[in-house]
Amino acid sequence: MGMNEIRTALKVDLKKPAADQPGLHNRWHPDVPFNGTIKNGEVVKIECVDWTGGQIGNNDSADDIKNIDLTKIHYLSGPFEVETAEPGDVLVVEIQDVQPFQDQPWGFTGVFTKENGGGFLDDIYPDAAKAIWDFEGIFCSSRHIPHVRFPGLIHPGILGCAPSAEVLAEWNRRESELISTTTLERIVAQPPEPQNVHAGSATGDVKAKVGKEGARTIPGRPEHGGNCDIKGLSRGSNTFLPILVKGAKFSVGDLHFSQGDGEISFCGAIEMAGVITLKLTVMKNGMANLGMKSPIYLPGPVEPHYGPGRYLTFEGFSVDEHGKQHYMDATVAYRQTTLRCIEYLRRFGYSDYQVYLMLSCAPIQGHIAGLVDIPNACTTLGLPMDIFDFDISPTAAAQKVDMGSCAFATT
Amino acid sequence: MGMNEIRTALKVDLKKPAADQPGLHNRWHPDVPFNGTIKNGEVVKIECVDWTGGQIGNNDSADDIKNIDLTKIHYLSGPFEVETAEPGDVLVVEIQDVQPFQDQPWGFTGVFTKENGGGFLDDIYPDAAKAIWDFEGIFCSSRHIPHVRFPGLIHPGILGCAPSAEVLAEWNRRESELISTTTLERIVAQPPEPQNVHAGSATGDVKAKVGKEGARTIPGRPEHGGNCDIKGLSRGSNTFLPILVKGAKFSVGDLHFSQGDGEISFCGAIEMAGVITLKLTVMKNGMANLGMKSPIYLPGPVEPHYGPGRYLTFEGFSVDEHGKQHYMDATVAYRQTTLRCIEYLRRFGYSDYQVYLMLSCAPIQGHIAGLVDIPNACTTLGLPMDIFDFDISPTAAAQKVDMGSCAFATT
Amino acid sequence: MGMNEIRTALKVDLKKPAADQPGLHNRWHPDVPFNGTIKNGEVVKIECVDWTGGQIGNNDSADDIKNIDLTKIHYLSGPFEVETAEPGDVLVVEIQDVQPFQDQPWGFTGVFTKENGGGFLDDIYPDAAKAIWDFEGIFCSSRHIPHVRFPGLIHPGILGCAPSAEVLAEWNRRESELISTTTLERIVAQPPEPQNVHAGSATGDVKAKVGKEGARTIPGRPEHGGNCDIKGLSRGSNTFLPILVKGAKFSVGDLHFSQGDGEISFCGAIEMAGVITLKLTVMKNGMANLGMKSPIYLPGPVEPHYGPGRYLTFEGFSVDEHGKQHYMDATVAYRQTTLRCIEYLRRFGYSDYQVYLMLSCAPIQGHIAGLVDIPNACTTLGLPMDIFDFDISPTAAAQKVDMGSCAFATT
Amino acid sequence: MGMNEIRTALKVDLKKPAADQPGLHNRWHPDVPFNGTIKNGEVVKIECVDWTGGQIGNNDSADDIKNIDLTKIHYLSGPFEVETAEPGDVLVVEIQDVQPFQDQPWGFTGVFTKENGGGFLDDIYPDAAKAIWDFEGIFCSSRHIPHVRFPGLIHPGILGCAPSAEVLAEWNRRESELISTTTLERIVAQPPEPQNVHAGSATGDVKAKVGKEGARTIPGRPEHGGNCDIKGLSRGSNTFLPILVKGAKFSVGDLHFSQGDGEISFCGAIEMAGVITLKLTVMKNGMANLGMKSPIYLPGPVEPHYGPGRYLTFEGFSVDEHGKQHYMDATVAYRQTTLRCIEYLRRFGYSDYQVYLMLSCAPIQGHIAGLVDIPNACTTLGLPMDIFDFDISPTAAAQKVDMGSCAFATT
Repeated sequence: MGMNEIRTALKVDLKKPAADQPGLHNRWHPDVPFNGTIKNGEVVKIECVDWTGGQIGNNDSADDIKNIDLTKIHYLSGPFEVETAEPGDVLVVEIQDVQPFQDQPWGFTGVFTKENGGGFLDDIYPDAAKAIWDFEGIFCSSRHIPHVRFPGLIHPGILGCAPSAEVLAEWNRRESELISTTTLERIVAQPPEPQNVHAGSATGDVKAKVGKEGARTIPGRPEHGGNCDIKGLSRGSNTFLPILVKGAKFSVGDLHFSQGDGEISFCGAIEMAGVITLKLTVMKNGMANLGMKSPIYLPGPVEPHYGPGRYLTFEGFSVDEHGKQHYMDATVAYRQTTLRCIEYLRRFGYSDYQVYLMLSCAPIQGHIAGLVDIPNACTTLGLPMDIFDFDISPTAAAQKVDMGSCAFATT
Repeated sequence: MGMNEIRTALKVDLKKPAADQPGLHNRWHPDVPFNGTIKNGEVVKIECVDWTGGQIGNNDSADDIKNIDLTKIHYLSGPFEVETAEPGDVLVVEIQDVQPFQDQPWGFTGVFTKENGGGFLDDIYPDAAKAIWDFEGIFCSSRHIPHVRFPGLIHPGILGCAPSAEVLAEWNRRESELISTTTLERIVAQPPEPQNVHAGSATGDVKAKVGKEGARTIPGRPEHGGNCDIKGLSRGSNTFLPILVKGAKFSVGDLHFSQGDGEISFCGAIEMAGVITLKLTVMKNGMANLGMKSPIYLPGPVEPHYGPGRYLTFEGFSVDEHGKQHYMDATVAYRQTTLRCIEYLRRFGYSDYQVYLMLSCAPIQGHIAGLVDIPNACTTLGLPMDIFDFDISPTAAAQKVDMGSCAFATT
Repeated sequence: MGMNEIRTALKVDLKKPAADQPGLHNRWHPDVPFNGTIKNGEVVKIECVDWTGGQIGNNDSADDIKNIDLTKIHYLSGPFEVETAEPGDVLVVEIQDVQPFQDQPWGFTGVFTKENGGGFLDDIYPDAAKAIWDFEGIFCSSRHIPHVRFPGLIHPGILGCAPSAEVLAEWNRRESELISTTTLERIVAQPPEPQNVHAGSATGDVKAKVGKEGARTIPGRPEHGGNCDIKGLSRGSNTFLPILVKGAKFSVGDLHFSQGDGEISFCGAIEMAGVITLKLTVMKNGMANLGMKSPIYLPGPVEPHYGPGRYLTFEGFSVDEHGKQHYMDATVAYRQTTLRCIEYLRRFGYSDYQVYLMLSCAPIQGHIAGLVDIPNACTTLGLPMDIFDFDISPTAAAQKVDMGSCAFATT
Repeated sequence: MGMNEIRTALKVDLKKPAADQPGLHNRWHPDVPFNGTIKNGEVVKIECVDWTGGQIGNNDSADDIKNIDLTKIHYLSGPFEVETAEPGDVLVVEIQDVQPFQDQPWGFTGVFTKENGGGFLDDIYPDAAKAIWDFEGIFCSSRHIPHVRFPGLIHPGILGCAPSAEVLAEWNRRESELISTTTLERIVAQPPEPQNVHAGSATGDVKAKVGKEGARTIPGRPEHGGNCDIKGLSRGSNTFLPILVKGAKFSVGDLHFSQGDGEISFCGAIEMAGVITLKLTVMKNGMANLGMKSPIYLPGPVEPHYGPGRYLTFEGFSVDEHGKQHYMDATVAYRQTTLRCIEYLRRFGYSDYQVYLMLSCAPIQGHIAGLVDIPNACTTLGLPMDIFDFDISPTAAAQKVDMGSCAFATT
């Protein structure tokens, strides 16, 4: 009598390359084989590698960020078969806990170079940078960004069920159309890539097919969620995921100790390896019943909360840094909003790269304020003042102090 | 001894056309004459008309919405001279209270026609619609959208100081450039418009100049704020506004009983006439000291709060309703997010227009979740379940009931 | 069409003695005549005098506090007949708004002398003291307690329905038993008092009967609520009140702009005159259905919130200031808790009386922590640090400054 | 480079009697020997047994509760020497995390018999009862109290530094005075008790002295905190503890997965074994600088929050269940408040003992409302409605269902 320890559905080995572990995979494809079975209603623990598969070290150089191999990322744990799951059902994922590994109490935030990965502000900040975050229980702090400390709203960046063949085809159609028609001089989407494909336990033809057709794990996608990078999917949340293939083929990964809205530096959350505790429940015929085309969720009741009056809030509009007026563009507006915050925090001695890293991972609130007052979209960014150990409010006296430096790459 | 009643710096007459009241104006221009003086540090009350200047009635037809004259809107109270204010200073605006007029305890939300005003979803919902909201103390409810009731996070949609001549010229330059270069087949911005210009107490040449050059009050703009439509600028908030001309020329208006993030239907907040109580304080040399290019603010401590677990949250991505993949477009993503919510609420009997109106004005939280996972931006929309008097959660049984109808225009 | 102004069920005249206004009364008795009728489900406004009936002035002397006539207090507005209400039903009172009168934007907090009224700490602080609070929209501040400012959680101290004759007899029985058996050398309860009785519109025999039997309005009582002084009964709350007589005979009064848990100085809230907006609804047979012996309530969703980490919290135990060990006495423990806070705030230059006044009315959280660890009860007091305009946290440097003085009585 | 795993300052062995582990002790006495040293500013993990030292099993009988040996409880981990700590200093304890052991994901709540331990309601509920709680990540639920589930505000019930000889003598003086003078027919305090004394690594004369003089660990005490059972001392909190002896002699224990205000059933929290992560920092001369006589603390920013409107709140007054009027007795009032809640929850099928257990450990808010309105103290109890998986609000239809049973003792 009495409850036993919760079953661990997947163990990972942090000392072994992710590519060599059959419980991981790095493409979305219906043919990636099942990696074990979870009962409907079961609570399980699933271990996860960090999203770079261990390419980043706990040190003071951003060379590893600069030279990262982006074909070897986003290794997901799974896909798991969920008993009774059929296409059209909904998988309810209750996240009961997320924890870093006890013997690896740290994570990292990186700014990729514009040439290799990029990020939201890469036109302005094109170089590689990195901050290491030490975990102290529910808190984290960084030697690379001093005087800041906050509790993590810990969560997985990625969770979702495998696409059906039809959905996968649609993804490839529309993304390749974007790639072929874009006028932007940058990489706008990643097509299927056979190099370094990891199809779990699949080999031979199946693995080749996954490499040829499999969707990259970088973007979230409306039909299944995936890498949605929503900080609210934390402990206590319930996410309702569309099920598109028999058995669900549920995968999870890319654990974040904390993330700010927008995750602006791309490798922006505090990335970590760790273990997630989940309860999976099948809601029969849920997609039709809920009128659902994309995932929905209920957050948990235990977010850090500072009180609304403790958020110093910046406004940004869809006029870019060159004075160009964009039409109702919330992306441009949010970029401006983040720049306003960077400018503000310079007063205290932080470098722009330090703030860029900080805004990527600290619990900032990025809101869409107005999207109808032509031609200007307006967005806001709320920065919790209580994560600083000094007073950053506009009415307090500001003093520049030595804030050290984040990690940079050797040139 | 003892405090006297707070001074009312401007009274409006709701029975008189806004165009005939010299204390109002409807353009941003440095030459609009001062409309009284406020001391540095003074607390005042300022009365405001609703943003349509009384064009909308408390009835069950949306004809007034359909036929609205958009050259006669956004009448602002002001501009007020603030003593000691100089360009480069910052005006700290503490909003101490906002109240509807006691004898007019109602407001409205409208969907404009695509031809006359439009809105965020006008491609899908092109017709005029309206909801009247009755105020019951801090709460509001609507006969046009039954079973919903919420407290207002009451605030002004517009506050700002007059632009300098240089800033105004820059606005006109960049917005006219957008107008002349856009490839979109819709109105993308409003150039200066002499028709129905209201330049406060100015007449003759000054009024003509304001009509010819004055910026329309529809968009918020980064240099001064203006119509930023940020719901957080509610009671207890402190906004730090750039001062661009001597005496500040502060104006305020467009009071909202409540608004949702995005204010998606354009006439989307619960628009009302009323009175705002403000304290204005000049922070000398504030723009340079704060490194400020756009307004910043601290919200107040009394927002309605439901607990994070009470927000049913929808996800949307930058793939539009025609299956087209957009590149990192948060505007497209937020449009999809709102559509997901509309589809969901159909289960209970609401019409799409009812939900469109509801999302415009109810205290929904629109977040930017991820803006770096190419090609998909991801945004979320949190709908507080406690504003409904029945259970809308995904795990509760849904039943379609008769939800009546919002107001429509006669055809 | 469209909603009219909300009906005002009772107007008061602040320039006229409360005793001369038939819409007021100052005893609980079933024979106080109805003072108008309210429909089941109706929303009404009710004006209220302050609880001293205007005995306290907006000045810098506490002579009025010292000399207050305690037989002339707690004038309630009512009793109102609520249509369809029968004994055994429950009256649901939704508080939609509470506002001070526009031309009287101030209130007061007083410490009574030990001889005339007393308070929670009167053994230690026996003298009269007073603070006047100015209202600035939703905020208040006091010239008598500088550097403190907070939004009001505005509410009525008293609301309830008239007792039946049986319930009234029981009140008189048990309170007279306490009076006759107490060994404490202080006034422990107030028996019926014919002097200065105000029985509303009753005269002659009925008034005499009310004077002879009527329960004083000072204590709350379990059977009906009354002067429960619960700060949570603010805007948006729904209170479920037992109905004990036909027509309910609902009364309300003693408006508070703000109050701290415990209301420790007795005249401890920020007392004010003003107007309350209520919706009254009868729940048939509610007492039996809800298993209810005392009122219950649901608070509203708009309390000020600072975040849990912003409450500096003091602990107190049931060992009194003379070193005497009491057995599980939460009253003793809470007294110690308040003393700990007074001692702490001395560091900044506040006098004990200033803090005593402040803790009575500021939004402090008084919690029962442990009541089982014999012999010590433990209570806590959470003081929101954000109501101060300087840093009171234990890790900040403290500096005594000139804090002026609260008002005292002339000696 | 890079942070190592956090040092574990004490390991416990759950399979071995607590009495045999020299790292534990069960008396407060300055002569209990140091159990290792912690650096000023160090972060450490400390393992703890549950407060009964393993006397309670994960089963469906309350025999173990009934027969518990109360001389063998409250085994604390410590006392630890904190470097540089001197009497008069303050020890700042930052709680960074608290976790149950991975292989023991459960805890218990018990009602002791009136004869052996008792509790807050033992006159009414004299029998032994028990509920086992299973931990599911941050949540817990019980097979003995169905349809209830909540996240834990996890915390230690006990933390404090050793008393000096003088302080210990004062404790013994005043508690023995209470024991010798009480007129209550119950155990009102526990004097020193040589039987089953555990003085850590001390033996012989020292152990005998600790047994003869050492204070029992049951009550919290104002001079050092101890068993204060404050639910707010959770993750992220900072407690400021008086240091009374050289080296501080800091101890901690009695971990709670969750506790309600009052911890009313005595063994009322969800008791568990586990590990706490702490940072200890010495504040030199802190007691004088802070004017501190008892501990103070700042809670952490991550409490579960449901929104104020989600707490169904009960009122209680100092009139006891026999109709006796008590004078301003918050303890009597809170007992009545808890009874009102028990009566209310009967409507849904819960037994009184189930609710008694539930209120002891669920995150209820017990507030002191009014303590000045003679003769009635008023307290409130806020019950978060969202911990139930059905609607308990007063306006929802109630239906009695089969709620099973908590564990009872064999008779």
